[in-house]
Amino acid sequence: MPQGKVETVPQDGLTTRQRRNQPVLAVHTGPGKGKSTAAFGMAMRAWNQGFPVGVFQFVKSAKWKVGEEQTMLALNEVHERTGAGGPVEWHKMGQGWSWLRRSDDAEQDHAEAARDGWREIARRLSVEQHRFYVLDEFTYPLKWGWIDVDEVVETLVNRPGNQHVIITGRDAPQALMDAADLVTEMTKVKHPMDSGRKGQRGIEW
Amino acid sequence: MPQGKVETVPQDGLTTRQRRNQPVLAVHTGPGKGKSTAAFGMAMRAWNQGFPVGVFQFVKSAKWKVGEEQTMLALNEVHERTGAGGPVEWHKMGQGWSWLRRSDDAEQDHAEAARDGWREIARRLSVEQHRFYVLDEFTYPLKWGWIDVDEVVETLVNRPGNQHVIITGRDAPQALMDAADLVTEMTKVKHPMDSGRKGQRGIEW
Repeated sequence: MPQGKVETVPQDGLTTRQRRNQPVLAVHTGPGKGKSTAAFGMAMRAWNQGFPVGVFQFVKSAKWKVGEEQTMLALNEVHERTGAGGPVEWHKMGQGWSWLRRSDDAEQDHAEAARDGWREIARRLSVEQHRFYVLDEFTYPLKWGWIDVDEVVETLVNRPGNQHVIITGRDAPQALMDAADLVTEMTKVKHPMDSGRKGQRGIEW
Repeated sequence: MPQGKVETVPQDGLTTRQRRNQPVLAVHTGPGKGKSTAAFGMAMRAWNQGFPVGVFQFVKSAKWKVGEEQTMLALNEVHERTGAGGPVEWHKMGQGWSWLRRSDDAEQDHAEAARDGWREIARRLSVEQHRFYVLDEFTYPLKWGWIDVDEVVETLVNRPGNQHVIITGRDAPQALMDAADLVTEMTKVKHPMDSGRKGQRGIEW
């Protein structure tokens, strides 16, 4: 349903256009499905607007997102071939971040790999490399103490320009939710795995 | 995170493979964002598996999904050009269902238009026309009594073959949730419109 109705008009001295174009920091959290899936659905919109999209997967088990990855890369090819939409980059921690190209990826410490990923994202934010970022499952390295939450929040809050950032994963830290413009919690009401069904192609991947 | 662990193994006489390939009926409901967006994210996966995808929008205001529509149609073009992925059809009630091609769309009664849409979907399910269906905002015509919930549930439960159906919208009827394999509720924790910000391109559309 259209949700264009604002509940209050803030006295912030901004015009509607200025307020409209503020960058969004969104968090998809909670125990239910759809956190990442909704982020990739948002990435479809961003692509269609011609925004450069960067996806960063903070999880070792990359096979669960292969459908989204292939599809986003197909959209990148559409962009390169026809100029429609925007460019898409997809980076996975699980294979060693591609910009590092280390030979010892398999041996790399997970915590250090997560920190490498965050450092690169912070660098990209500072130079406004993308317009739309998905930090997929990024709550886990925060939760596990691998990356400092305060530093992340400070970097995100102070990012320049008009860069949208979507962070997914369970148990988002409170400081991150406090800093976010949009927080959605996905709650599991019923899941096929509860009755002993396993994931299947085209649905889970 | 990988969610391949099943909590119980049912005594239903099915092999894991048989159980894995059961068609899924999913409902995305609740007051939060991401219900439709997650459905379109799932459609990306289905597309990547080569599943024929059919999207049916049960809402008059089509502009809010233009990003997803353009992107899904770009994927359809990739399919037609290269054979990758699956074919995608996108149908909107708001413009008069394309298969009806009536000249009096603007005058058509909304309730009758919704019923026409459901009749066509039931027909497509009976001939297994698609493999993955998004019935977007379909809970509203059910809630408003325009379409009979019991008939919908019976048709969905008895659909032939292996057709996945994702239904989105607030206030899903209990009978539909009871029939579904997967129910996710999206809860709004915080939304930019609460503080007077309006929707913007690349985020809301």
